[in-house]
Order: sequence, then structure tokens, then C-alpha cells
Amino acid sequence: MTKEFLVDQIRKKQSFLCIGLDVDLNKIPKHLLSSEDPIFEFNKAIIDATHEYCVAYKPNTAFYEAHGINGWAALEKTITYLNTNHPQIFTIADAKRGDIGNTSHMYAKAFFDDLGFDSVTVAPYMGKDSVEPFLEFKDKHTILLALTSNEGAFDFQTKSVDGLEMYKQVLITSKTWKNANNLMYVVGATKAEYLADIRQIIPNSFLLVPGVGAQGGSLEEVCKYGMNQDVGLLINSSRGIIYASNEADFANAAKLKAQELQIEMALLLQSL
Amino acid sequence: MTKEFLVDQIRKKQSFLCIGLDVDLNKIPKHLLSSEDPIFEFNKAIIDATHEYCVAYKPNTAFYEAHGINGWAALEKTITYLNTNHPQIFTIADAKRGDIGNTSHMYAKAFFDDLGFDSVTVAPYMGKDSVEPFLEFKDKHTILLALTSNEGAFDFQTKSVDGLEMYKQVLITSKTWKNANNLMYVVGATKAEYLADIRQIIPNSFLLVPGVGAQGGSLEEVCKYGMNQDVGLLINSSRGIIYASNEADFANAAKLKAQELQIEMALLLQSL
Repeated sequence: MTKEFLVDQIRKKQSFLCIGLDVDLNKIPKHLLSSEDPIFEFNKAIIDATHEYCVAYKPNTAFYEAHGINGWAALEKTITYLNTNHPQIFTIADAKRGDIGNTSHMYAKAFFDDLGFDSVTVAPYMGKDSVEPFLEFKDKHTILLALTSNEGAFDFQTKSVDGLEMYKQVLITSKTWKNANNLMYVVGATKAEYLADIRQIIPNSFLLVPGVGAQGGSLEEVCKYGMNQDVGLLINSSRGIIYASNEADFANAAKLKAQELQIEMALLLQSL
Repeated sequence: MTKEFLVDQIRKKQSFLCIGLDVDLNKIPKHLLSSEDPIFEFNKAIIDATHEYCVAYKPNTAFYEAHGINGWAALEKTITYLNTNHPQIFTIADAKRGDIGNTSHMYAKAFFDDLGFDSVTVAPYMGKDSVEPFLEFKDKHTILLALTSNEGAFDFQTKSVDGLEMYKQVLITSKTWKNANNLMYVVGATKAEYLADIRQIIPNSFLLVPGVGAQGGSLEEVCKYGMNQDVGLLINSSRGIIYASNEADFANAAKLKAQELQIEMALLLQSL
């Protein structure tokens, strides 16, 4: 998917919501556990109920790998379901991969070509040749971890390197990589005020923003500091939507939560 | 597996060799491609031929994920084969994972409990709460990326943070984490002289050293600067061993290469 198509979808749906499909069998409705593939059945119901209110879905691969072959099969079925029934949806494999060149190429091929995701999250620690293999794929997007929303972000990401925080060095350096226009960035919402500085460095890039809701970030603050002329934001919510209820009404409860966020986003888009 | 058992195996086998099981279907002997599970058949033959000369095997997950469900099945069969037939072998899932707390816990459970690996490689960028969930598992080992062997290592890892290179900050900081005694570290062999400094910070930890051979590092140099009283080194070789031949004699060719390295290691161990 091109960035232009994504921006167009955001304007059309009046939403920049991304829904995290982090399926935990301990948290989904009990009645699904007897189905042949509870993870996929859960995802399908959530997607059917919420797709009008979001522009992206983001399965985190950990939740699928935790179930071995069955988990991997559920991930494949989920992305195939999305690509077949909702090709206008932007898909994110939240995998946080990164390895030496030929190995990163294997990961890129797995997520972009074989599974058919539009984007994948990648860790920057191993530098240029660990990320560039992902950037080679046309109309695919590499979402680089810059400033994450967890406590541990302060261990290394905010440390000063030559007078500038590490995450800013990551932003600056990554702009010099080949096909850097295929980069997006993960920027946690718990530090919304940092977004003003970040926009100085990468004014035009899309930011994937976790941490709104469960982790305490404010949607309005994020938009105030992070929005650009293309909107340039994908706000992720996982638990707040998909576990809004763990009863038979779970899909409808998720729909209401997604709709609530979409309405809030539509209002914020008016200020553009 | 305890660290003491691993050290004991190294002394017994006079080897600190780790063999990387990075199976690429384009590089394995053609006659295997018609078997039901070429990746597992290849691994089984390599393991059967080389296990006397090494103490560890390290499948890189990228090479398995690249084949979807079949790849994941081959990974499961490989680790099960190792744990069943060679329980004295130390196993490493080279996965380079790392995510927020509850998600890292899912990865740790997947690799340690479900698959049954002794260790997993983890990226440090997201800090303490992304790594500690891996450290909770008794007699399991978390191999943290410190200084990798690729060109991109110089992008961020060697940058100065408060007067000390980032990878040293990673080493120092990680020592303060809960259950830090379950940490090992990835340190690339292409910068062997850095090992002297590294041993000042982590004198007792095991180091997993890629980059000997194909990537240009010298085994003798690595031992000179990196060995400690417990040996403290696992030297990885992948392509140099498993692709020593791509004909019918591939397993025997791998055996000869592994044996060659083991003999070299036995000589170096005498200097301890």
C-alpha cells in the first residue's frame, strides 16, 4: 500500500486508529475456546465489528508464536482474511525484528512477500545493514523503533549521544539510509511533548503511536504535537478495544470502543 | 541447563564451538529437496555428524519463519530432536526478540517453555522491562546483543554515551537487572581487541561470538582477549560448517570442518 492511499483512507474514514490484535487465550470469551481456531475466530469477529472505524490492524507476533504452529497458522489466516476481505486496511506485523543483512532479508521476505503485510516493526540497535533489507520492498513500510512507550525506554533511548538523545540519533541517522522514504517510526504516547522535537527531525513521516489508553497517553496531546499536514499518525489501541468485554457481546463492545475513538479522532481532524 | 553443566561439557569435549543452523533451501544438497521436510532432514544429518565436536547449536529463527508454518514445524522438530537425543547440548534460539513487558514474557514462554530452548538472543534497545521477563526463567539464559559483528554496529553501538560506548552502557546497565546472572552477551569477533575492555565489565559472563570465519574474525585473537577461567566463550560458525559441501557428502564435510575447529579449540584451551 502506498502512503498516499493510507492518507486517503484516513480522510475518508475520519480515523487514524490502529487496532492491536494481541490475542491472549486467557482473556478472550470462553465460548470461543471450543472452536477449531479460537485465535482466528476472535480476530475475525473483532475485524468484522471494527473495520469501519480503523485504518490499520497490528498483530503482535509474540502472541502468535506463543502457540507454536497453531499460532503461526492463526497469524497467516488473519492476514489472509484482512488482505482478501479488507484490502484497503493497512496491516502491521509488530515483530520488532532486526539482524545482519542476509538474515534481515529473510525476515523482510517472510513478512512482506509470504505473509503479505504492508509493514513490519524493526529494532534499530544493529544499524543500517540490519534495516535496509526491509526498505528495499516497494510500497512496503518499515516502522523503526525510536522512542517506545515502556519504562525501559529511559535506559538507553533517552541517553545523550553527542548532545542528542539516542532516539533522535536513530531518527537522524535513519534518514540517510537507502529508500528511507519507506520508513515510519514507533513513538510512544506517554511522552507526547517529545513529539514536537521529533517533528523537527522527521516532519513528513508517519508515526505509529502506542500507549494511548492502557499505558496512559492522551490522544489530544499526541495530535497537538505530532500531527502533520498528512495527519501522519497511527494511534494504536489493543487491550482497550479487543477486551472491552469478555462475554458473548465482545465484538459489539469492541465496536463501540473503536467507534468512540473514531469520533474523537474525527473531531481532532477538523483542526487540521 | 546450568552454566556449570555447559562449562563441564566444554572441558569434556575440548570444544566451545556453536554451530549455526541457518538453513537456506537454495544452499542445501538438491537431493534433500524431495524429502517431506528438507529443513529438518538437513539439520538432523548435520547434528548427527557434528555433535561430538560442538557444545551448542543455534538456529536463527528468520530462516524458519521464512517458510511459514512448515518452517516453524521444522524448528520445533529440530529442537525436539536435540532435546531428546542430545540433552547435553546447549541450544540457542537466535531470535533477537524484545518488546514491552507482557509481550516479552510471551516470547520467553514460547522459546523457553514451549519450544524448550536453553537460551534466546534478545535486543537491548527497549531496556530493562523488555529483558527482565526473559531472566525470570531458572536455568535458562538470555543472550543480550551488545556489540554485533555487522557493519551497522558502528551506527549506534559504538557511539559515545556519557563518555562510554553504547554497548558498554548496555553491559553495565544490564548487570543491575533482576536475575542478571542469567545473562550472556553477543559480542562480534570482528572487533576482537574490544574484548579486553568488555572483560573488565563482565569478567564472568559467557560471550556468544559470531563472525569468526565468513565474517573475518580470528579465533586466536578472540581467545586471547575474551577467554576467562570458565572459558566463557561460545564461538559460532554457521555457513563455514553447514555449507562445507552441497553434494551428497555434505554431512561428512560439515563434520570435518567442525572437527578442524574443535582441534584448534583444544589447543587454545591448553593455554588456560
